[in-house]
Amino acid sequence: MIRKCMIGQSGGPTAVINASLAGIIQSAFQAGYDQVYGMVHGIAGLLEEQWIDLRLFQDEHQLKSLMETPSMYLGSCRFKIEPEDQALQQKIIDILTKHGITDFFYIGGNDSMDTIKILSHYAKKVHSNIHFMGVPKTIDNDLKTYVTPGYPSACHYVATTLLEVALDSVVYPQKAVTIVEIMGRDAGWLTASAQIVNEVYPHTVDLIYLPEDTFNRSCFIEHVQRVLKQKNHCMIAVSEGLHFDQEIHAFDTGIQKDAFGHSSHHGCSNILKEWVLQTCQCKVRAIQLSTLQRCAAHLVSLVDRQNAFKVGAYALHCALENQSGVMVSFLDQKQMTTVPIEDVANDVKKFPMEWIDTENKQIKKAYIDYIVPLIYESGKIELPHYEIRS
Amino acid sequence: MIRKCMIGQSGGPTAVINASLAGIIQSAFQAGYDQVYGMVHGIAGLLEEQWIDLRLFQDEHQLKSLMETPSMYLGSCRFKIEPEDQALQQKIIDILTKHGITDFFYIGGNDSMDTIKILSHYAKKVHSNIHFMGVPKTIDNDLKTYVTPGYPSACHYVATTLLEVALDSVVYPQKAVTIVEIMGRDAGWLTASAQIVNEVYPHTVDLIYLPEDTFNRSCFIEHVQRVLKQKNHCMIAVSEGLHFDQEIHAFDTGIQKDAFGHSSHHGCSNILKEWVLQTCQCKVRAIQLSTLQRCAAHLVSLVDRQNAFKVGAYALHCALENQSGVMVSFLDQKQMTTVPIEDVANDVKKFPMEWIDTENKQIKKAYIDYIVPLIYESGKIELPHYEIRS
Repeated sequence: MIRKCMIGQSGGPTAVINASLAGIIQSAFQAGYDQVYGMVHGIAGLLEEQWIDLRLFQDEHQLKSLMETPSMYLGSCRFKIEPEDQALQQKIIDILTKHGITDFFYIGGNDSMDTIKILSHYAKKVHSNIHFMGVPKTIDNDLKTYVTPGYPSACHYVATTLLEVALDSVVYPQKAVTIVEIMGRDAGWLTASAQIVNEVYPHTVDLIYLPEDTFNRSCFIEHVQRVLKQKNHCMIAVSEGLHFDQEIHAFDTGIQKDAFGHSSHHGCSNILKEWVLQTCQCKVRAIQLSTLQRCAAHLVSLVDRQNAFKVGAYALHCALENQSGVMVSFLDQKQMTTVPIEDVANDVKKFPMEWIDTENKQIKKAYIDYIVPLIYESGKIELPHYEIRS
Repeated sequence: MIRKCMIGQSGGPTAVINASLAGIIQSAFQAGYDQVYGMVHGIAGLLEEQWIDLRLFQDEHQLKSLMETPSMYLGSCRFKIEPEDQALQQKIIDILTKHGITDFFYIGGNDSMDTIKILSHYAKKVHSNIHFMGVPKTIDNDLKTYVTPGYPSACHYVATTLLEVALDSVVYPQKAVTIVEIMGRDAGWLTASAQIVNEVYPHTVDLIYLPEDTFNRSCFIEHVQRVLKQKNHCMIAVSEGLHFDQEIHAFDTGIQKDAFGHSSHHGCSNILKEWVLQTCQCKVRAIQLSTLQRCAAHLVSLVDRQNAFKVGAYALHCALENQSGVMVSFLDQKQMTTVPIEDVANDVKKFPMEWIDTENKQIKKAYIDYIVPLIYESGKIELPHYEIRS
């Protein structure tokens, strides 16, 4: 039987999503696949019959190089298939069938899993035998799997960078507040990784705010003032998806409009900065880690990269076993399984409230126990040893 | 003869300024100094007689660890001594004399060299024998020396990060502009390092704007539109010290005021972002590298760290030779000398206009030939090899 697979990447980049691509490619060739194609810009490209032949990665050296390349080799898209748009679904099945595709892999986050759900349901309905497989990736870690490839590398980047920013922020004797805004629109997983710094250098990140916790302006100012009573510098890690209460949200919208009436997304760190400026007599700096935190291959976690590769290889293996309409999922640090795509699509895995020390705005030890072995092979936090004046 | 030295750090942090501190400390103990002190928060701390004993760094292991620590171990200050404030100058000489200090080292940038100038002049006037030595550091590279320690490490950070941001910025098929704002208020040296990426990955950073070049809104938009005609993505590196012409500057001030009338320094990248939004139909992202670029020890240049160490050791050596009122300066990649402090204090070394391709907003090869051996021991650019879809 001739087997041909079509692989796509979708959603936002990570430092290791290409390792998952490499995992699928290598396993496919090892399993004797006749063709391995990559959609250029995901479903959007597929609809225009834009794909490339991936046989160049039969070369071991190039496959290794692909594994180490951050961002998305195949390009991405944000393309939503409406469940009721059956004409579009039929068009996709037609294209895949015309070219003899037997297996379809989509590496992505929540939205991408929704695509897999819709296509696998439609395929079943029209009796197509194409396997539709979801391969998880997101720095947000909000997919329903023990861990999502991409997240541990982003954590290592955040921890390394926050430590350096913190050392920088305390050099002047004057009171100062530093606010670092970290990605995560719906869940605070990545922001929580700020706690890794505190494990090695206690009291470095003074306040950590996640979207899962309630956020209130006056409480926030109270926290900052409490820290500034004890020491001259206050370091804050805040999630971009901070959940303002309603009154504050209206205010927020106000200052986000610029002189031209455009909504200029300066981010929540700039709103918090304003509030501190209005209430505390001190210098304030807002820093947004922006896309730097997604693609920092130079601070990749090797455990994460290896897991990203494995999850791709496992997806291929499951397609060969005739599975479809599933996402590969981690049961723990190493073991994988598949879960029905209905159980994961468009569902956000929140950061557990019981891991948040809501009083002190810190993250509890249970999180550290969870994350450290996912980043570091040694099972220990690998941040450099720096000399700090006592 | 009893010798005691007092070392201070001043101005903004770098990834290697502590290596210069380590260089002075090690050489001082090797030369048999009786005491080696470190001012806490520079001159500001000295005036309050706040310093620490640095003999803990006689331990080789701890000295190595200090060398690898970014930011400023001793803390910093922004303290300006007015030339006419002789009472203050006398007070400093009195404190140093009272404690038997024979040598005074100040590691810093332009302002710090001004401090050395004023104090060395005053010492001469009152017949004090204390040696006042300037040790250069700044990521801005705008001091009058062939290279300033701290700059090459920041360049390596900027190049590594820009490459990752660039790979991230092209994943979607839609037209998009990415603007990265890089430090350098008075000189464009650090922004110029964006060109390092283009040497390995041609046409990655499409437009590079330095403060040395004239900047005009309509020309800028023309450049961006020219790039967007050729390809879907435009990547821009821009210096925070961009020199807007007067008319534009007034406009700029307008949008920098927030709803409360505060001037909120959102940076020139956000101004450029607004302009692109107003004129081009595309997504625009503004990224500020902020303090991340100053202290990125995890991307340090080993050549730079070694040079930072040497410049400290050399300063000690010159003080022993009875020099004063001088700054250590590089003649080329390796050789050092001292220059009269009057020749360097408060004087900005601009990026050479002849190294700027003003038409294409690129940096010329002469700069690459200058910077590469200052960053990389191998003499070759050490950026990772990534797979790019052709």
